[in-house]
Amino acid sequence: MGRTHSNGYNRIKNFFPELLYEPVLKAVCSRNADKVRAFADQWGYESVETDWKKLVARDDIDAVDICTPNDSHAEIAIAAAAKGKMILCEKPLSRTLDEGQKMVDAVEKAKVANTIWYNYRRVPAVTLAKQIIDSGKLGKIFHYRANFLQDWTISPELPQGGEGLWRLDVEAAGSGVTGDLLAHCIDTAMWLNGSIVDVSAVTETFIKERVHQLSGKVQKVGIDDACIFHCHFENGSLGLFESTRYARGHKALYTFEINGEHASIRWDLHDLNRIEYFDHRDESIVRGWRSILVTDGDQPYMKRWWVPGLSIGYEHSFVHQAADFLKSLETGEPCHPTFKDAMETQKVCAAVIDSATSRSWKNTNVKGKME
Amino acid sequence: MGRTHSNGYNRIKNFFPELLYEPVLKAVCSRNADKVRAFADQWGYESVETDWKKLVARDDIDAVDICTPNDSHAEIAIAAAAKGKMILCEKPLSRTLDEGQKMVDAVEKAKVANTIWYNYRRVPAVTLAKQIIDSGKLGKIFHYRANFLQDWTISPELPQGGEGLWRLDVEAAGSGVTGDLLAHCIDTAMWLNGSIVDVSAVTETFIKERVHQLSGKVQKVGIDDACIFHCHFENGSLGLFESTRYARGHKALYTFEINGEHASIRWDLHDLNRIEYFDHRDESIVRGWRSILVTDGDQPYMKRWWVPGLSIGYEHSFVHQAADFLKSLETGEPCHPTFKDAMETQKVCAAVIDSATSRSWKNTNVKGKME
Amino acid sequence: MGRTHSNGYNRIKNFFPELLYEPVLKAVCSRNADKVRAFADQWGYESVETDWKKLVARDDIDAVDICTPNDSHAEIAIAAAAKGKMILCEKPLSRTLDEGQKMVDAVEKAKVANTIWYNYRRVPAVTLAKQIIDSGKLGKIFHYRANFLQDWTISPELPQGGEGLWRLDVEAAGSGVTGDLLAHCIDTAMWLNGSIVDVSAVTETFIKERVHQLSGKVQKVGIDDACIFHCHFENGSLGLFESTRYARGHKALYTFEINGEHASIRWDLHDLNRIEYFDHRDESIVRGWRSILVTDGDQPYMKRWWVPGLSIGYEHSFVHQAADFLKSLETGEPCHPTFKDAMETQKVCAAVIDSATSRSWKNTNVKGKME
Amino acid sequence: MGRTHSNGYNRIKNFFPELLYEPVLKAVCSRNADKVRAFADQWGYESVETDWKKLVARDDIDAVDICTPNDSHAEIAIAAAAKGKMILCEKPLSRTLDEGQKMVDAVEKAKVANTIWYNYRRVPAVTLAKQIIDSGKLGKIFHYRANFLQDWTISPELPQGGEGLWRLDVEAAGSGVTGDLLAHCIDTAMWLNGSIVDVSAVTETFIKERVHQLSGKVQKVGIDDACIFHCHFENGSLGLFESTRYARGHKALYTFEINGEHASIRWDLHDLNRIEYFDHRDESIVRGWRSILVTDGDQPYMKRWWVPGLSIGYEHSFVHQAADFLKSLETGEPCHPTFKDAMETQKVCAAVIDSATSRSWKNTNVKGKME
Repeated sequence: MGRTHSNGYNRIKNFFPELLYEPVLKAVCSRNADKVRAFADQWGYESVETDWKKLVARDDIDAVDICTPNDSHAEIAIAAAAKGKMILCEKPLSRTLDEGQKMVDAVEKAKVANTIWYNYRRVPAVTLAKQIIDSGKLGKIFHYRANFLQDWTISPELPQGGEGLWRLDVEAAGSGVTGDLLAHCIDTAMWLNGSIVDVSAVTETFIKERVHQLSGKVQKVGIDDACIFHCHFENGSLGLFESTRYARGHKALYTFEINGEHASIRWDLHDLNRIEYFDHRDESIVRGWRSILVTDGDQPYMKRWWVPGLSIGYEHSFVHQAADFLKSLETGEPCHPTFKDAMETQKVCAAVIDSATSRSWKNTNVKGKME
Repeated sequence: MGRTHSNGYNRIKNFFPELLYEPVLKAVCSRNADKVRAFADQWGYESVETDWKKLVARDDIDAVDICTPNDSHAEIAIAAAAKGKMILCEKPLSRTLDEGQKMVDAVEKAKVANTIWYNYRRVPAVTLAKQIIDSGKLGKIFHYRANFLQDWTISPELPQGGEGLWRLDVEAAGSGVTGDLLAHCIDTAMWLNGSIVDVSAVTETFIKERVHQLSGKVQKVGIDDACIFHCHFENGSLGLFESTRYARGHKALYTFEINGEHASIRWDLHDLNRIEYFDHRDESIVRGWRSILVTDGDQPYMKRWWVPGLSIGYEHSFVHQAADFLKSLETGEPCHPTFKDAMETQKVCAAVIDSATSRSWKNTNVKGKME
Repeated sequence: MGRTHSNGYNRIKNFFPELLYEPVLKAVCSRNADKVRAFADQWGYESVETDWKKLVARDDIDAVDICTPNDSHAEIAIAAAAKGKMILCEKPLSRTLDEGQKMVDAVEKAKVANTIWYNYRRVPAVTLAKQIIDSGKLGKIFHYRANFLQDWTISPELPQGGEGLWRLDVEAAGSGVTGDLLAHCIDTAMWLNGSIVDVSAVTETFIKERVHQLSGKVQKVGIDDACIFHCHFENGSLGLFESTRYARGHKALYTFEINGEHASIRWDLHDLNRIEYFDHRDESIVRGWRSILVTDGDQPYMKRWWVPGLSIGYEHSFVHQAADFLKSLETGEPCHPTFKDAMETQKVCAAVIDSATSRSWKNTNVKGKME
Repeated sequence: MGRTHSNGYNRIKNFFPELLYEPVLKAVCSRNADKVRAFADQWGYESVETDWKKLVARDDIDAVDICTPNDSHAEIAIAAAAKGKMILCEKPLSRTLDEGQKMVDAVEKAKVANTIWYNYRRVPAVTLAKQIIDSGKLGKIFHYRANFLQDWTISPELPQGGEGLWRLDVEAAGSGVTGDLLAHCIDTAMWLNGSIVDVSAVTETFIKERVHQLSGKVQKVGIDDACIFHCHFENGSLGLFESTRYARGHKALYTFEINGEHASIRWDLHDLNRIEYFDHRDESIVRGWRSILVTDGDQPYMKRWWVPGLSIGYEHSFVHQAADFLKSLETGEPCHPTFKDAMETQKVCAAVIDSATSRSWKNTNVKGKME
């Protein structure tokens, strides 16, 4: 993710020239000195560090962007907050509720700007969906469903743990698809459709043992390979979520659909420049699902890019979030999702895992509306 | 459904001319004398009855096709079996497990040919999916998901009960979307992917009260407007099912997808002449989801119809089941799904409703493989 | 085509019960006595003939349906008209303009009801497109394009001529894809968008020689394997048409699209229950192509069939034309396209072939509006 | 286009770090001093010029990228070549064959590296199509068709000429959609399918007069609003091309399809990360159009970007061409399409306009294979 974030910063000047603040890439940090030097050269960082504690201690650093595996989010974030640094942190917030709460407490105590990279909110089509929903066009909501399907861990030969594979190691990741993929779906869902109040989940670990890349030994797999849950939203609608890394044919099939009394919206990451919209109030003979190409200048973010009809990609969502973070420094308004917002997603994830383990419904204890 | 079945019988001679048996439309029965007479004229029935007991008592009737609301399936079927009639019965088998078991016992005791109109099995694309799955191309199965989404009961002004609306009356229907729509999904699922062993469900009744068309009074709505469940299949795969009549924009969106180790298949009733197939073993640079148009003569049932490329519709699945039933009389083999097969679907439906009511996982007690 | 027409007649009673006239299948005629007897049994014809002249001479025959290869359309139709028979004739009307004009003259002189089976007009989605266009929603028209792509003659091993293959024999067919496939496109186009005034075409015969099934000898192929033309419509719009039997992957890809000042419509035979509609006057943020599922009771013909969401197929267009023909006998209005209408399509086809041969623009001499 | 090119250069270092040469943005030139200064600040140019002749005269400039309207391509390119500058020039090469030939002569005489920004070749899916075609999988080719449909000039209120609108002014642009849009289609077509030998075209100018933005007067419109042509390729296949700015609902619908004896490929700019591929040699029951998501590391250019499943956009094709140009400086191989390659496209464009004007077939005089 270091590449996507660095790319996000590098493009601000060209596409958001009016911003008062601009990112300066002072330093990049990683344990491998050779690799981090090469990365700094490639992406334009002024200096390198191999110990994050030194980075956090530097006076010339205003903001820290945490792209490490989940098991170091809390420690780094808490230390950075203590030094008064602004923090941008990869999702999910943390491995556990306890870690997450300490992170929220740390940034709130330090009063530092903070955001979590739930980047899909800032795909223009998703932002447009938010605008349409908030306009009330859908009426009372009955259903929300989302899934995030991948197929990259089907081979039993794939090791767990270590570089590029920490997402399969429960110690490093905290959970499997729940924290990695469903967390995205939950963040979007609560942003679009309000709080999730209770959940009933099932998880599965299809491959029970894998070689661990670091130990070289066959070890029990601790993560969830797949997770399904249904839930109630506070607004009375039913939710349905599924994620897996065992859906052959799908690389990053993140889709959601919301059904209201009058209208429905759906979106698919594989076709990210579009939303589909159905409005029952259309004249009967020409009523149908509309395939809306989101490339016009009056649609969210798109006046920044190219002429109507020309598409953008995955990476642009990170540029948008970086820009919105910088803008938030001008306005003093939070750049959502903040750590606090992301904590609500953590609560749902924790309830999901708890529900799956206990084979019972669990309350999420999410209160109020996520922004 | 009387129209779809009658249509099924009427077309046999033209499209399955080699069958030894052919349907003779001796009589049609309905309580309204005028309407049943008009129906008989339109569809070519030789005579009419207004009391089903008289129909069942007639010696010139070999087979009874039950298209009544669910609350009379058991009584008619048991009486017909007792008279030694063959029985074709609309789905779902029954309102309750108890009714269903009595029906199974009745046809087994009477040794009469019987089948339940889970017609979607005989959409050629679905039959082809069965062939592909049975060929082993998919490898070990990880996921099965299906949904059946409609939007016709969103208006609170819609009454419940009575003609054309008995599906909203729990007394007549037994349940809401579970028995009406999910039963189709479950039948297909267990046919394609084996038994479902346990379920965890949620149901919702969005409109709590409606005028009853017969009483004229506002009454509590007893059916499930929406139902979601996840489950385990006996083969270790996870299942996910959703049905609702509150998904604005969907009239009859029955879709399923199955993900195996090597390959995946998906199907959509709105585009019923196609299946989509992904095979990971394809050469990398030309690997993708294949959109297979099922109109060729070497694909199931299609040599009966038109030249390649030309589509058939919903109704043809009934013609196919009627033909297969007649063929089963020649061979002496059962025409699946039989009452016994359909009883397995009932068990899952009952477990689903039970799970939703008790907010807990329920075993289905389905044993062995449905055919 | 004998099957599709017979099927069309057989279904009238069930789906159009209010019609005053109903088809009675008095006789079917074909040269092979055994085959025609089997066909009669299968489809319910009361008698058979092996000489069409005897059929046409019979007093108990009111209407003659001509499903023969194109080279006998004129002779049979002229004879039938002379006997005062109503005539339903497969498309294209004729092989040549001269034949066609004689046929038109014959039915007009005899004042007999007549129609040509350009069945695609009566696919409900196409009929709906006509209604939308006639409503003026599209505004001034700029473009019309259509294609009809197949892939069944790619193999050089395929013989020409004889049973099932007369479409490859220029003597029997008159032309290749122009008369067989483009004629459909032209009929629809002039019905939807008015007259075509001039054309510039190219044709190609990819396989120059094939064994003739009847002679057993390798003979020059006389038909056009592919044909492309552009044209002007009388309303000032540009037209573009393409047809081929060498487009690998397409079985019956008949599509058309019309672009107007305000709105556009497109349709695809492979997904025949839908039209797509774009209206620029939609509110900007929810503007997009609408995918309209044509299965509702208030859409053309669909109240005859099943409940909303459930699809019909190719064959139903023939049922609709048969019904409309019968209805026309009640009202005394012509059942379009009549022989006269079809003659306009012949003029365009002839101009297309002439243009391709001469490598120059040709006027079509089509006058006025086709109905 | 200055933005897309500048963006292309700026991203090289991050995504093609191994290249020996890297772009240095020495200067940007435009007539308006304020605007060019702002542009330089935004995009990182070291200096500005307001007279292109001064720019071309500077010794610190190695390469000139021409993004001006078509009427100045020739003059600038010839001057730059004379100074020994490398030249990257926006398409189309020139307004006229004469201008184009002088440009080719100039760069060949000067022996300077040169390329034309027909960027769509370097959309990864299009590059993959080229690889598949060159592998021979398609067999003998029968058909090639392409279109480029837009809808931005439908309003008669839109002026012609001047800033942002020079594409409507025949003096500045040379032609309308032919040079602007069909030139892209022709470049891709001849790269994928070989030379076009003759053409038969029609053009239309739907809005005959528009206010000219510079003169303020209503003037005759000299460009083609729409153009359709069919053609023969040297390999015997038929080609069909259409372009318009009057196709309501299409912003940048550039699609192509190629049909071979064994297999077919199609692509759509609106869904640019995919190609569709049909292979008739697939096993019959699972034969269908494959929707290939081009996001894997073993597909062209994609290892540069994100993980499989994550899409890129329009702009990336320019990054790829900039990188390939720099790579060509290392290898000494030309970066196609060169001016010479682009001259072949000009010949086809000229023949198209000539054919439309004269209402007759025209030879293109294209010789040999474009690279």
